[in-house]
Amino acid sequence: MRVYNFSAGPSMLPLEVLEEAQKGFVDYNNSGMSVTEMSHRSSFYDEIHNECIALFRELLNIGDDYDVLLVQGGASTQFEAVPLNLLHNKADYIVTGNFSKKAYKEAKKFGDIALAGSSEDKNFTYIPKGDALNFREGADYVHFTSNNTIFGTRFTSVPKTDAPLVCDMSSNILSEVINVNDYGLIYAGAQKNVAPAGVTIVIVRKDLIESPNPLCPTMLKYKTQADANSLYNTPPCFSIYMAMLNLRHLKKLGGVAEIQKINEYKAGLLYDFIDNSSFYTNAVVKEDRSLMNVPFVTGDSELDKKFVKEAASHGIQSIKGHKLVGGMRASIYNAMPVEGVKALIEFMKKFELENK
Amino acid sequence: MRVYNFSAGPSMLPLEVLEEAQKGFVDYNNSGMSVTEMSHRSSFYDEIHNECIALFRELLNIGDDYDVLLVQGGASTQFEAVPLNLLHNKADYIVTGNFSKKAYKEAKKFGDIALAGSSEDKNFTYIPKGDALNFREGADYVHFTSNNTIFGTRFTSVPKTDAPLVCDMSSNILSEVINVNDYGLIYAGAQKNVAPAGVTIVIVRKDLIESPNPLCPTMLKYKTQADANSLYNTPPCFSIYMAMLNLRHLKKLGGVAEIQKINEYKAGLLYDFIDNSSFYTNAVVKEDRSLMNVPFVTGDSELDKKFVKEAASHGIQSIKGHKLVGGMRASIYNAMPVEGVKALIEFMKKFELENK
Repeated sequence: MRVYNFSAGPSMLPLEVLEEAQKGFVDYNNSGMSVTEMSHRSSFYDEIHNECIALFRELLNIGDDYDVLLVQGGASTQFEAVPLNLLHNKADYIVTGNFSKKAYKEAKKFGDIALAGSSEDKNFTYIPKGDALNFREGADYVHFTSNNTIFGTRFTSVPKTDAPLVCDMSSNILSEVINVNDYGLIYAGAQKNVAPAGVTIVIVRKDLIESPNPLCPTMLKYKTQADANSLYNTPPCFSIYMAMLNLRHLKKLGGVAEIQKINEYKAGLLYDFIDNSSFYTNAVVKEDRSLMNVPFVTGDSELDKKFVKEAASHGIQSIKGHKLVGGMRASIYNAMPVEGVKALIEFMKKFELENK
Repeated sequence: MRVYNFSAGPSMLPLEVLEEAQKGFVDYNNSGMSVTEMSHRSSFYDEIHNECIALFRELLNIGDDYDVLLVQGGASTQFEAVPLNLLHNKADYIVTGNFSKKAYKEAKKFGDIALAGSSEDKNFTYIPKGDALNFREGADYVHFTSNNTIFGTRFTSVPKTDAPLVCDMSSNILSEVINVNDYGLIYAGAQKNVAPAGVTIVIVRKDLIESPNPLCPTMLKYKTQADANSLYNTPPCFSIYMAMLNLRHLKKLGGVAEIQKINEYKAGLLYDFIDNSSFYTNAVVKEDRSLMNVPFVTGDSELDKKFVKEAASHGIQSIKGHKLVGGMRASIYNAMPVEGVKALIEFMKKFELENK
């Protein structure tokens, strides 16, 4: 039986995508080879690679003034690649969770980095906006994390600043419509909405990557992969293939605008249920709630443990909250079906009845 | 029809390994999930991860004084990670091909790096040994590449020096018995003998990684992943899973000593045929010939092109030589069956008869 996997990442992929990859796993398109075995210089792989990049461009409406790079090392590697490529004088960081804090700390090793704003005062349960943000004039960039996986918050609009925006979009890329032109750079680990772990997407304005720090390792230079169409060395071919299949699937569904409607519907079901319940609570300020990650608690840590354990035996997998928050967290990325959210709510009702 | 894929990498994987991965691709071990979807913090994945590391330790007889790390970015990233972690004063490099030259160039950005020896004078057709190597006293390490994929050479014994040896073993790890204790650090991209591209193995003596360069990015620090059992951030889970299946398969075959015999037999068949032919030649000094990569030419570049083209229609894939050498190259890694080498020789005979 296929379970509903509420993991924060790696996370569910559409069943159709998995089944197609399975069908061709040993022999891809009558090539006599598995995608896992193909030379990255072969015409077979070349088509996969270029289709993946073209689909990113199409689905996110990315202009020719941006490079689309497929790199390795996860978003954590980007915490360092960003300042090593883009920092010349100073940059400002907005800290709204664990990962944006890590990005801020890493960047400080490389130059003049200031905190533009933080929501740590209230355990990251809101998004600082307006007067709560202080941007310095002449900053090379402003860094923020659009969706906070652990705390379940998101930016519903981009911060207002003249500096290029750099955004870690790991946990909500392709989940809602964005205007790429609002950003100088977007990066995202694949393992939530795109593909199996192993590939990281970087979308970057071409003019920003011309003068990296002289100490930037060649493999972390965006220019290295931009000049080589992300084939400077062997790419993580199979993850890119899976991304390509998943993007094809998203296109067939109707693209990002269509999945956004479904995501809003799914999140709406769950938040409405929690808000109408006297048993479960979600601590996030309503207007800043994530569409992707919904943390909730019963208020009793023993009951929370029981919930996680019993949920697993009802086909509800990896619902345990992050240790920084406790309780439960339902990650409901693009590939989580509506039925999965409904099944979770049914289980929540049952558990409430039995334990109230 | 399954082809014989002679690609230099990514390259063939054992059919049994591919079939097992295919079988469980959508539902791994009745978990209700694909390995591509699993949380890297789940018990399902944890078992895979730890079995992979344990099998490396067992098959290569790695002692407790070494860490076994699973990282991202390919060997090219290691060209920089090595000096950023191990270089304090100076290091010596042996240049025997394209990749060792790249490693040498990258390292020069970080300190006092000298050329201990090179075979570039004869287009990398031999391995410099003995008096041809000059090591400096007090070097932090000596770097070499055990097998040169493009030129088809290999070290048949380790260079003699007091400094810790650092070896890029990307194209022959697990193909022949080594004594890990001869090395300070071994690294290898997975996509030749281990797994699909996306994971890089680092085997490193624990005492060498305690004081990285202060400018070393956190994600390139060996200590970061050593302290976290390679789970500091999301690892390339599926590549690691495939590595685990492949290592299980190698163990069942009888381990590295057993595959070495098969590799020697396969390479012997091909070199003997070439040496007894007046039509094909291999330029490498006999004693330095690779067991993994066998470059050969007809001496006529038009005929070489014809060979590559006709070979493909006989189920012999990716036999084209690297542009730095031209002609043909048969990469015959662990997963290339004896029948594949025999099929290649049969085709070579036929082609010779028709074109002599």
